[in-house]
Amino acid sequence: MAAFYPQFAESWRRLLASIGGRRVAVIGHARPDGDCIGAQVGLAHMLRGLGHEAVCVNGDPVPRRLQFLTGGEAFIRPGDLPETAKEWAAIFVDCADHARAGDRLKAYFSAPIGNVDHHLSNQGYAEHNLVDATSAATCEILAGVALDEGIDLNAIAAQALYTGILTDTGQFRFAATSQRCFILAGELVARGAEPAVAGYELYERESRGKLQLLQHFLGSLRLECGGRVCLGTLSAGIFEQTGTTAEDTEGLVDYARSIAGVDIGGLIEQRPDGGVKASLRAKEAAYRVDLVAAEFGGGGHACAAGLNVKTPASDFIGKLLASLARRLAAVDAERRQ
Amino acid sequence: MAAFYPQFAESWRRLLASIGGRRVAVIGHARPDGDCIGAQVGLAHMLRGLGHEAVCVNGDPVPRRLQFLTGGEAFIRPGDLPETAKEWAAIFVDCADHARAGDRLKAYFSAPIGNVDHHLSNQGYAEHNLVDATSAATCEILAGVALDEGIDLNAIAAQALYTGILTDTGQFRFAATSQRCFILAGELVARGAEPAVAGYELYERESRGKLQLLQHFLGSLRLECGGRVCLGTLSAGIFEQTGTTAEDTEGLVDYARSIAGVDIGGLIEQRPDGGVKASLRAKEAAYRVDLVAAEFGGGGHACAAGLNVKTPASDFIGKLLASLARRLAAVDAERRQ
Repeated sequence: MAAFYPQFAESWRRLLASIGGRRVAVIGHARPDGDCIGAQVGLAHMLRGLGHEAVCVNGDPVPRRLQFLTGGEAFIRPGDLPETAKEWAAIFVDCADHARAGDRLKAYFSAPIGNVDHHLSNQGYAEHNLVDATSAATCEILAGVALDEGIDLNAIAAQALYTGILTDTGQFRFAATSQRCFILAGELVARGAEPAVAGYELYERESRGKLQLLQHFLGSLRLECGGRVCLGTLSAGIFEQTGTTAEDTEGLVDYARSIAGVDIGGLIEQRPDGGVKASLRAKEAAYRVDLVAAEFGGGGHACAAGLNVKTPASDFIGKLLASLARRLAAVDAERRQ
Repeated sequence: MAAFYPQFAESWRRLLASIGGRRVAVIGHARPDGDCIGAQVGLAHMLRGLGHEAVCVNGDPVPRRLQFLTGGEAFIRPGDLPETAKEWAAIFVDCADHARAGDRLKAYFSAPIGNVDHHLSNQGYAEHNLVDATSAATCEILAGVALDEGIDLNAIAAQALYTGILTDTGQFRFAATSQRCFILAGELVARGAEPAVAGYELYERESRGKLQLLQHFLGSLRLECGGRVCLGTLSAGIFEQTGTTAEDTEGLVDYARSIAGVDIGGLIEQRPDGGVKASLRAKEAAYRVDLVAAEFGGGGHACAAGLNVKTPASDFIGKLLASLARRLAAVDAERRQ
């Protein structure tokens, strides 16, 4: 079998050599998703299998729905790091830039030895950078490197890396889903990853309240900008009413985007403080919803961005729609050229 | 590479030999899903590549959301079959029994030469039966046989077979999702299947009405049997009210099953004729919802079954719940042993 990532063979070996007997901190990003937690757990196991000492560090806790994949791995929070942690060898995973781990972890681990990531905007902020934007997931890179290097993956690592590929491909359907994703998923299944368990834990353990939240969100959907934008709103108090938390909003905005003819979907969450949190999802990268979010002090990716404002929803939505209309017009103008 | 389905090598060759220069009708089941249409299109292309003449026949039209995978394939409806069609060689795909294609097609093609299927309850009603209940999809069997036999798959066939595996594994997450599914999916991508296109067509082109139907269904969910069963109801007239059709119910029942603690989810669809169509989905095969469906004249798989009754929902639901309660008790008793 040809190597999956021949371009990383040298960097990987140098990265390992740089550890030099130190404990390794495998660091993920704030508000971690499946690819982040999967990559942290997977890499920690890979390193231990190679004789290194490794711990996982994250600024935020592991979300409830991802706890199944940790295999009992203890995640260290910034406040629990010992003073000696500054001496550890730091490898950042799934972090497009150094600050994605949070300012505190960036300051703590100011000179990373490793950076494993698949984000297009990653400029390579570490000593050894394994960055490939053609990969659908950071876990895809780690699984490929593990197979290339003949590193044994135990069932916990296999399930963790599988889950990262699963979630960051949107269940194998986003544009970056390649033959390599499927080959690696199959290899991970052969090493103990259980697709049905991941599917069950991620998609079959919803709370009744989460479905009520979805019902509420669906009822609030309205088409704007000639049917090219679809916005849904979660009113203040809906979390209490349905017994849910902000974590439960995950995935809701995808319903707004999923409608035929809609280019951009949005979720408007009215905060108890009177402000608004908004999430935007575009069907195509050309819409650059990160530019729209940036107008309100937010940011993100071309297809997925978010923002927080202190103004009430009644004021904000009109401004958001005006900004979205300008983006649509700009894209239309580019396409006419 | 070892063969995927060595047990079918002989049957497949005999099946081809039985065609004997006749035109082949590739027949699917009524109310076709992705695995059915995918298998019909995939097999028709495989047969043509081997020099046979093949047409697809189905009692119902190809659902709008599946049309992308047909590659322009014309599907013949029973009313459009010429008198001479009785002489065609009939291969049934994804039909657990002969009658699943509809009474009319069963009568028309009364002596099938082939039966390719993955349903547990398939008894083998054709001259040559390629039936394997360990497979997640009929398309998985066909893709495996194509690779085993060295049959070229063009991009249309690859996309069709890929889509069948995708939909019948619930996006690679149901219990039957195996390493073989991923290896075959990867091989199909290498032959031109496009996961992002399938994902877009299947999951990013919803109608506004479909989301309203989902909203209605979520609002109707009720927990039964101590929270282990969740049933949702679509009242008569809801299709007109939301501008949807029976086709749009696909996937709804999965929401009923997705709740934590629920073992079996159900969708009760009130028919205009006063009867009921019900779909049942279990989280684990042990629950054998096909046995419950069979009590009402229906059938299916251990985890996914369906039935139609002529009694009104008000009469039916009590009987269904009693049957489900007996199944739960039976499974509990088995587990205590």
